[in-house]
Amino acid sequence: MPEPDNLKSILRLFTYGLYVVTSLGAEGPRAATISWAMQVSFEPKLIVVGMRKGTAICEAVQHCRQFVLHIVGEHQAEFAKAFFRMGQIGSDAIAGYRYGLSARGLPIFGAAVAWLECEVVEEAGQAGDHVLFVARLLDGDVQMPASSPLVLCETNWHYGG
Amino acid sequence: MPEPDNLKSILRLFTYGLYVVTSLGAEGPRAATISWAMQVSFEPKLIVVGMRKGTAICEAVQHCRQFVLHIVGEHQAEFAKAFFRMGQIGSDAIAGYRYGLSARGLPIFGAAVAWLECEVVEEAGQAGDHVLFVARLLDGDVQMPASSPLVLCETNWHYGG
Repeated sequence: MPEPDNLKSILRLFTYGLYVVTSLGAEGPRAATISWAMQVSFEPKLIVVGMRKGTAICEAVQHCRQFVLHIVGEHQAEFAKAFFRMGQIGSDAIAGYRYGLSARGLPIFGAAVAWLECEVVEEAGQAGDHVLFVARLLDGDVQMPASSPLVLCETNWHYGG
Repeated sequence: MPEPDNLKSILRLFTYGLYVVTSLGAEGPRAATISWAMQVSFEPKLIVVGMRKGTAICEAVQHCRQFVLHIVGEHQAEFAKAFFRMGQIGSDAIAGYRYGLSARGLPIFGAAVAWLECEVVEEAGQAGDHVLFVARLLDGDVQMPASSPLVLCETNWHYGG
């Protein structure tokens, strides 16, 4: 078997973006930053996100089956960092970032470059420590046209290995 | 409902790398370039890859349940491009790139920055046009230490939208 450190270093060569996810848990709005997100189908348009089992955001998505995924822009590292840990949750802001509500009652941050509102259609990842939510797109909007996304490997953060 | 073009432009803001996947189909070795790949669990270490249903590489992985994922380095756009379409398949090279065989008989390209040999543990994505293979790591090696990966948004290619 290969050295675990070797496999870890290879997994660190995978390329990710940064995304702030919101959902509506049994006890109210929740938000967290994730990196494990990708498209998985063109027709219909589906994405998949990975969230650590037992975290507040994962349990919120399991509860309401819907979430909003926000694209973090290349100059928005602070926006991503604000949701690495659970921040102060208010009726119109989380961790100091103001949100409005979608027609379905999900928080949408005005700060994000763009957002997608999604509905879970499948769960996978049973063998691992993250849940994989496959989701279809319900709605979405670009709030800052002509912006580029923040790429994880251009920060000093990691999520992988 | 939002305009399809709007959702497409948001999906184009997702960040991906480039990966060359090989597997062993019923009719021999197969190789293809993909962008939809990410880690999905730290313990155990699992990854997920998305492959368009009905393609030769997808059918090869469904046949043998194992594959090798190669990391494409930042200066290796030509290596990625070589497997956008099915290339000439020989006993020691595909599309001009030489390969050796793993102990399990899977092709490993010497040109890649690093590779991971994987075994499928779960399939998902039934609702979409790609199969999602969740896979555990069997083996792996770094062939070019201190290399950085090629990031899709720094090329003029897209896979998403």
